[in-house]
Amino acid sequence: MREFDLIARIRDRAALRDDVVLGIGDDAALLQPPAQAQLVVTMDTLNAGVHFPPGTAPADIGWKALAVNLSDLAAMGARPAWCTLSLSLPDASADWIDAFLDGFLALAAQHGVALVGGDTTRGPLSVGVTAHGLVAPGRALRRDAAQPGDDVWVTGSLGDAAAALALLDHTPGVSSALRLRLDRPTPRVAAGEALAGVAHACVDVSDGLLADLGHICAASGVGATIAVDDLPASDALRALGGDAEQHRQWQASGGDDYELCFTAAVAQRDAVRAALSPLDLACTRIGSIVDGTGVLARTRDGDRWQPGGAGGYRHF
Amino acid sequence: MREFDLIARIRDRAALRDDVVLGIGDDAALLQPPAQAQLVVTMDTLNAGVHFPPGTAPADIGWKALAVNLSDLAAMGARPAWCTLSLSLPDASADWIDAFLDGFLALAAQHGVALVGGDTTRGPLSVGVTAHGLVAPGRALRRDAAQPGDDVWVTGSLGDAAAALALLDHTPGVSSALRLRLDRPTPRVAAGEALAGVAHACVDVSDGLLADLGHICAASGVGATIAVDDLPASDALRALGGDAEQHRQWQASGGDDYELCFTAAVAQRDAVRAALSPLDLACTRIGSIVDGTGVLARTRDGDRWQPGGAGGYRHF
Repeated sequence: MREFDLIARIRDRAALRDDVVLGIGDDAALLQPPAQAQLVVTMDTLNAGVHFPPGTAPADIGWKALAVNLSDLAAMGARPAWCTLSLSLPDASADWIDAFLDGFLALAAQHGVALVGGDTTRGPLSVGVTAHGLVAPGRALRRDAAQPGDDVWVTGSLGDAAAALALLDHTPGVSSALRLRLDRPTPRVAAGEALAGVAHACVDVSDGLLADLGHICAASGVGATIAVDDLPASDALRALGGDAEQHRQWQASGGDDYELCFTAAVAQRDAVRAALSPLDLACTRIGSIVDGTGVLARTRDGDRWQPGGAGGYRHF
Repeated sequence: MREFDLIARIRDRAALRDDVVLGIGDDAALLQPPAQAQLVVTMDTLNAGVHFPPGTAPADIGWKALAVNLSDLAAMGARPAWCTLSLSLPDASADWIDAFLDGFLALAAQHGVALVGGDTTRGPLSVGVTAHGLVAPGRALRRDAAQPGDDVWVTGSLGDAAAALALLDHTPGVSSALRLRLDRPTPRVAAGEALAGVAHACVDVSDGLLADLGHICAASGVGATIAVDDLPASDALRALGGDAEQHRQWQASGGDDYELCFTAAVAQRDAVRAALSPLDLACTRIGSIVDGTGVLARTRDGDRWQPGGAGGYRHF
């Protein structure tokens, strides 16, 4: 397939929106933001062998490449609108592209996101996405807005993706529920939108809970205490049984969960639950924001708990 | 250097603008577009060995990665505003990053562009940029707006970058003027803005003049005739002397010039010249838009001329 055939193949399947004046096919896309809205922009790239294991299905790569970006928009409380896609491919196989688009566009359709541009280049497999969302001025959730006394909350459950990744190579038949959390993460877009105006600070859990909550603490000039044994676990994770310490590691330090970790005033507990209750999504209080710096985790016995690894994924 | 040190190093040097509500350091950037403006978005990635030769200086890679994106905004007639950067690096050397930023941020400063986000990942050297510009509704230059009878124009001169690339490996001391056109292309941003409202269709010359003019023809449902011997050449290119046919190849088919090729009504000739006259930038009439399809090039003897190669750079 030649480059222009490849682009045509993508353009033919990309859905549009009324606010897309000009989509794929010109030097740039032309978009009409609504009056007054603020624009929320994030850009994340997935590289083969770093962000997904070798052998990951192309549809899963497509899904995840968009999901990690929508998760960043969710963490800002933004509504997704448009995205662009930069695909670097060792070769241009029509079957690979079609499968990739199956995953990418399925998630885009769920959130009404239009794919409006990008480029295709030859090179090692790499998928770059820029996602654009919209939020009313003053409503965005920021990392720097945590206040001492806030509760710390997390949506959904933690540790599934890390467990799937750890067990992938040497456990036949890793639970498909765990594997789906790794390969097809669910960006918490509706939760982020619902929390805008209710929560204070927010971050998505991509590097690992302690590391990401640490980003909130650093940006806000506060500390946090966490009850590591209160971190929510899925049924699939609990069904694995085995070493409780291993579970703590996956839940507190494992990356790739794409849940939202957020802080809110104690007086807002009912408001938080009310905001999320239509979503069929658990939310769990896991600690508090305190004066100080850094994140202190304790077990239910009151012992200080520290991650055994590097405390979050490090690229370098 | 660790990932967060690397990001901090970039953030410390990134200039801001009043419309950047939140720049590097959160899950996403937060930007305030002006009322009524349309948003122009482009995303291009440069891969080592494909888009720049091995051994290219990191400052030149940084410059060019932004330049090719600003060139796309120029081709739409947009004013650049913000960009994001996705850096994939085999390792995180502080010296490399500093030099890369020297080039990237020098060009950003020239155009008042704020670097507001992105990511850094480990992987083969690859630089992805998304650039955002602004344009008044209805003013954008599009590929699909050429009309039969239009003049075809090109800014500046063609062929320098292709000549530099061709001579790089086996010619000691390639003219530094040619080499600069390859390594530090000048996006024609002011020209694009000046032509909005004057020109009909526009494209930037990245794949090669014939290929890129072919994109205008395909999008507009028209054909074009070009006088290949009228294509403008720089003093540096002319000084090479040698084979006239080789020069035609470089000028008509070589990529990476980043000039603007545009069409405008014959009645607008004076308006085109007036729009570009403050810019110290040549503009040359090279042909006409006609009924039909495709681009027909003729030599001054009236012979049909065809490129010897593939007619533009192909990734696949």
